Parts: sequence; C-alpha cells; structure tokens
Amino acid sequence: RINGDRLWDSLMDMARIGPGIAGGCNRQTLTDEDAEGRKLFQTWCEEAGMTMGVDKMGTMFMTRPGTDPDALPVYVGSHLDTQPTGGKYDGVLGVLGALEVVRTMNDLGIKTKHPIVVTNWANEEGARFAPAMLASGVFAGVHSLDYAYGRKDQEGLTYGDELKRIGWDGAEEVGARKMHAYYELHIEQGPILEAEGKDIGVVTHCQGLWWLEFTLTGKEAHTGSTPMSMRVNAGLAMGRILEMVQEVAMSEQPGAVGGVGQVNFSPNSRNVLPGTVIFTVDIRTPDLEKLNRMRAKIEAEAASICDGLGVGCSVEAVGHFDPVTFAPELVDNVRKAAERLGYSHMNIISGAGHDACWAAKVAPATMIMCPCVGGLSHNEAEEISRDWAAAGTDVLFHAVVETAGI
Amino acid sequence: RINGDRLWDSLMDMARIGPGIAGGCNRQTLTDEDAEGRKLFQTWCEEAGMTMGVDKMGTMFMTRPGTDPDALPVYVGSHLDTQPTGGKYDGVLGVLGALEVVRTMNDLGIKTKHPIVVTNWANEEGARFAPAMLASGVFAGVHSLDYAYGRKDQEGLTYGDELKRIGWDGAEEVGARKMHAYYELHIEQGPILEAEGKDIGVVTHCQGLWWLEFTLTGKEAHTGSTPMSMRVNAGLAMGRILEMVQEVAMSEQPGAVGGVGQVNFSPNSRNVLPGTVIFTVDIRTPDLEKLNRMRAKIEAEAASICDGLGVGCSVEAVGHFDPVTFAPELVDNVRKAAERLGYSHMNIISGAGHDACWAAKVAPATMIMCPCVGGLSHNEAEEISRDWAAAGTDVLFHAVVETAGI
Ligand SMILES: NC(=O)NCCC(=O)O
Ligand SMILES: NC(=O)NCCC(=O)O
Repeated sequence: RINGDRLWDSLMDMARIGPGIAGGCNRQTLTDEDAEGRKLFQTWCEEAGMTMGVDKMGTMFMTRPGTDPDALPVYVGSHLDTQPTGGKYDGVLGVLGALEVVRTMNDLGIKTKHPIVVTNWANEEGARFAPAMLASGVFAGVHSLDYAYGRKDQEGLTYGDELKRIGWDGAEEVGARKMHAYYELHIEQGPILEAEGKDIGVVTHCQGLWWLEFTLTGKEAHTGSTPMSMRVNAGLAMGRILEMVQEVAMSEQPGAVGGVGQVNFSPNSRNVLPGTVIFTVDIRTPDLEKLNRMRAKIEAEAASICDGLGVGCSVEAVGHFDPVTFAPELVDNVRKAAERLGYSHMNIISGAGHDACWAAKVAPATMIMCPCVGGLSHNEAEEISRDWAAAGTDVLFHAVVETAGI
Repeated sequence: RINGDRLWDSLMDMARIGPGIAGGCNRQTLTDEDAEGRKLFQTWCEEAGMTMGVDKMGTMFMTRPGTDPDALPVYVGSHLDTQPTGGKYDGVLGVLGALEVVRTMNDLGIKTKHPIVVTNWANEEGARFAPAMLASGVFAGVHSLDYAYGRKDQEGLTYGDELKRIGWDGAEEVGARKMHAYYELHIEQGPILEAEGKDIGVVTHCQGLWWLEFTLTGKEAHTGSTPMSMRVNAGLAMGRILEMVQEVAMSEQPGAVGGVGQVNFSPNSRNVLPGTVIFTVDIRTPDLEKLNRMRAKIEAEAASICDGLGVGCSVEAVGHFDPVTFAPELVDNVRKAAERLGYSHMNIISGAGHDACWAAKVAPATMIMCPCVGGLSHNEAEEISRDWAAAGTDVLFHAVVETAGI
C-alpha cells in the first residue's frame, strides 16, 4: 500500500503554488506559477532518486532506472497545469500519485525490470493554449512541433515564446522516447463513481471530442439608432447557435454532451452591436459516428442561422480526438489490482480528454479513476477524499508493478 | 456661412489623436488619448479667444464673452470621447462645429448679447464607464458626483481615479452653471436622413433607454464529463435571453429596438461551463409606456428562462433616460435656420442618447442632425460628407446667433 498521508501532503503543498481565489488553483500553462510548480516537482523527484529529461514541448520525464538495460520504461503521469479557476486534483493527482508510486517502491526496496518514468505533460488543459493535451499530442505525432509552438493565448503570446520565457524548453526531440506502457490516474470529473458508491473506475474508453471555434461577422452598429431591420446581429446569431447546440446534444441522448465555455464579443461595448463574435463549441460522445454527425449538424444549422441574419460564419476545428479504446491487458491489470486490494470498482468511460488518449496511439495505455465530490471539476471547489486518493494510487501502484515486472 | 474647409481640417486633425485600426478612432474616456484630444481642443479655443473652465467631472467649458453682463450663456457642444472602435464624427462634429461657430463669429466680427460656451462633455459614450452621458447627467442632477466617481471600467479602475490620473479634474462644482439655452449638432447615427435625401434633421425628441445588466450564475463545471442533466448552464440562459430580447423588440415594432453589445463569460475557458455570465441589454423607444413595458417583459421572461435552467439571475439598471421632448422654440429656430439657408430638412427623433437629453432637464435644449453614410455609427467606417458637416454647422451658427442675440 502507498503512503496516503505523504501523498496528501504533497497535493496540498503543490496547491499552494498558483493559488486560486476560492480554494482552488490558477497555475496555467507556461506561466510563472507553472514554472514554480515544475521546480517543486523536480526537487521531489530528484530527492526520490529520479533523473530528469525535458523535451522540446516542455514535458518533464523523471526516470527511475530498471534492472533490465534493454527494457522500455513504463510511463506513469498526468499534468500539473490547471484551469484559470481549477481544482487541486485535476491532473495533479496523477502526477503526484505516480511520484508516490516511486516513493513507495523506494520504501519497500522494490526494483522493477522496466524503468519507471513519472511524467508531467505540458499544456493538458488547453485553457491558455488550445487544443488540450497539446504536448502529448505532439508526442504521439498528432500535431507538429511548429503547430504547437504557434498556438496563441488570448493576449496573442505563442506557446513557443512562452516556453522559452519560463526556461522549460528542453532539448529532447518530442516523441523520440518509446514506451512499454502508459498509466494515468485521474479524478473522474463526473458524478458516476460517487453516485454508484465505487472507489475505483476501471477506464475502458474515452469519449471523442470536437472543439469548433466559430467566428461570426456582423456589422458593428449603434444599438440605439440602428433600426431592427438594418441589423446584422452576430450576437443574436451566437445566442441562437447556443440554443441549437443544446438541442443537438439533447437529441443525441444518452451519451453525448455539447456546450460553450468561451465567448468573446468585439468591440464588447454596451451600445455597439458586435462586429465579431468568437466562441468555441465543445461536443463529445464515445460514439465516433455520432460525434461526427453532431459536428455536421451543428455546422449546417449554424450556417443556416447565420444566413438567416446575414451574418458571416466561419468555423475552425481547434481541438479534436476520436473516441479511444484503452489496452485490454492494462485495463485487466487495473481491475485485478482493485480486486486484490479489496476496492469496489466499475467500468467507466472517461468524459474528459486525457494525455492517456494520445499515449494510447503509441503504446498500450489506460487510466484509473477515483471519484470526486458532486462530479465537480474545472471549478475551484473540486474536492476528493484522502481515502479516494489513496485507493486510486494503491491501484496505480499495483498495476504499474505488474506491468514493470519485479 | 461657416468655413467648411476649416471645420473639416479640424475634424481630421482631431481624428489623428487616438487613431483606430480601421480609419476611425479609439479615444476612450479618461485615457491618455482623451487627455491629448482635450489639450488640442483647449489650444484651438484659446486661439479663438475663449477662456476655459473645467468642472469636477472633467467637462470643459470654453467661454466667448457676451455684451450683456447679466445674460446667461448659450451652451453649444457635444463630446470628444469615442467608442473603442468609434468613428471620427460621433460627438466630435458637435464640439468642433461649436468651435467653428465661434471662429465664424470672430471672422465676421459678430458680438452676441449672451456669452457662448463651447462645451466638451466628459464620458458621453459610456463605453469605458457606464452609463453614457455621465457628466451631463451629474450636471443635470440625475446622478451624484459620488456615484459618477465610483463607476468602474472592465479593469476595475474608477472614474474618479482615472480623471485625477489624466489631470483633468477641475475645480468647478458640477451643475453650478446656469444656461440660457443648449444646442447640440450631431450626426444622425441612423439611416433616415440619407434615405430621405435631407440635409438637416430637426430633432424634436429623443427616444428613452434602459441598460439592463444581467448577472447569471451557473455552476462552473467540465464541458466533457458533466452530463447534460447535471448542468447549470448560464451560457445557455444568456443565449435564450438574447433571442427573447429580439422577440420582445420585434413585438413592439415599429419604433423600438433591443440588443446586446457586451457579454463577459467567466472563467471564459473552452472546457469550462461558465460560472458567471454578465451582459447588458440595451432597449430603446420614444414611447415611455412602451419602454417600461419592454423592460418589465424582458426581466420577467429572463427570470423564467433562468428558473427553467436553475440559473441564478440578477438585474441592475446601469443606464436609463426617459424619452425627451426638446424645447419647441429652439426646435423652431433650427427649422427656420435651415429654411433661411435653403437646406432640405425634416423632423426626426434621435435614436441615440445625447448630452442634450440631460441638458434639456435644466435649460431649453435641442439638437441638429446631419446624415451619415449608410446610417453607420459606432463603427470605424462611420462617414459623412464635407457638405453635410458644413450644412449642419451653418444651421447651428444661425440658430445660436438667433438665441444669443446680436
Ligand atoms: N481532464 C481534463 O480536464 N482535461 C482537459 C481536456 C478536456 O477538456 O477534456
Ligand atoms: N450618441 C451616442 O452614440 N451616444 C452614446 C450613448 C448612446 O448609447 O446612445
């Protein structure tokens, strides 16, 4: 069993870096707070005897050597970056849980055949730089390094420049490493495990996603002196599209979601009808055919809504992954570990995207989930219990030892 | 007749201060650009023999003395502040047109009984600090100075602090001055005069306004892992309210408008359902009863939309004026001046709010409008012809001389 108190203390220590305003965290990708969190994590890993590699995307690979010089490493990790108003556990549990696995191996004098690499993937959230899971995506060959370096935040700063600025631009070619397997522990971020009273989610799949960034072009005009008949109202078109996205998602129940988290009006002045409205639609479902049908429906209906108002409409896909099926032998390892340890468990499909989804393209991969209170995540009030964290990390420990071999 | 070329040159000179990105201006209230524009205007007025007074709201009063020591001044003006992506004429024509009236009086050696006070009202647009027409509102006793000083921009900076920062916090008590009459020349900002082929709008009324700032409270949550049934979606509520505002405005045709220019999501991240959505509804009509009926309908329907989604809804009125009837004797002066000068004219109701609306509370007041291309305003592409500007200023000159007496 891992040391639940030590794990919890580390979670709380990390949460003090980039504190939020309501008990959570604001440690966004490539900010000074991100750099500070990385430094602390590096120190902990080095104290646990690991050595660091950093790739050109800024992903941190902390290696505990194995006993077989020819064996590929087992990678275990997640991400330390957070949403602007994020919780203390989303991503962090997976990274510090992996560190706890190594610390426990050290305590117990366990030597594994395969090396263990505790991994902190860069820019998982995609909050500052879309898309999410950017560094693992480059690692898996889904995106080019140039594409990733050119991604911009809302101030127009690029990923490449900001990575240099915080001093975490490593030398390693991205994706040069080969993995024996990849495990990721994560909080569920949804309500199912808690509602079902299960300690462990055995993650069999991850639902697919499209992020559709709409740019609507209206006619900037005075809200008072412009008659209704002369308006080219991009804000109204946005309002109608939000309702339509809701209807499309509801028509595809069960097992589909759709919503909008980001909306930017320009010039965003009370008495000016917006010239431009930019917003991102997020749609997900585990069914590939349904996912693409939803996208097609939304784009077609948005075009017709905009046509009806004379509003210009362009769409760019700024994030995408197909639904993922995780490696059955690793999924089995997770299930068996939960059983061996006496934790209640159930199969679950991940609602959120994770670095494991991209790792699954280049290696056998899977995930372990633990419950979170009220299914709440991407909220500073995100909460888990000490026991849930320990149970998930216990299962991670057993599954990793199984795969890494003694 | 006034000097149309001199007027035009001054308009172009002023437009170079706080240039926009597409041919217009960004000279928002109490910015460094605003200070620079004020300085230039002050210099021009002093060259024309006027002396300056500045009140505690930062409004500039430039006085040309009259011949009768007991006669109250005739005020003539508008505003030099602009929208973030504003035009070169909205407000500016009224201020520099008033300056041109004085320059023409100087050229022709005209001395008036009543002094002339060319006025640059502070914060007319309300883009940076709501509500619009803030300084004239304090002047007319509609708002207190404390209220005005406490108004905040989107960065949280206050009017009072920013006024001090740019060094235009004058010593005069706001509203201490008494007016014999108030005239304001302005571009129409709507399509009617151009469509009807008229040079001059004789402004008889101004429509009333409500700015309703909605704060919707949802539950910040993950866009992927939060099932549709668990969402408390403030963004969706906003979308439905935008559609409803459109329907309310359409149901009150003709003679009513409604729309939304400003929307702010928080935390505004692609994969987070917003915890808070703040936006401002702008409704206007010349009919007081209709105006208040629209407000009541919108608030009631918004409450029911939010209830249906479990979203919290609070509303604050951040801007308001009742419909205004301008002083008949001044309106007559304007009409007679247009006739005397041979300009085509028609009666018109102002669609936008103006400082004249508040001045009308404390003195006989009216306005003169000239056409603008395509009815476009609050847009950098706002355009007028040199002839339209000259015609409007000619009429202003004649009307002011009539009221100020020779
Ligand atoms: N786990 C998580 O919140 N990842 C962010 C990417 C996503 O939106 O699913
Ligand atoms: N004239 C003008 O655009 N004033 C701004 C206040 C309003 O929105 O009507």
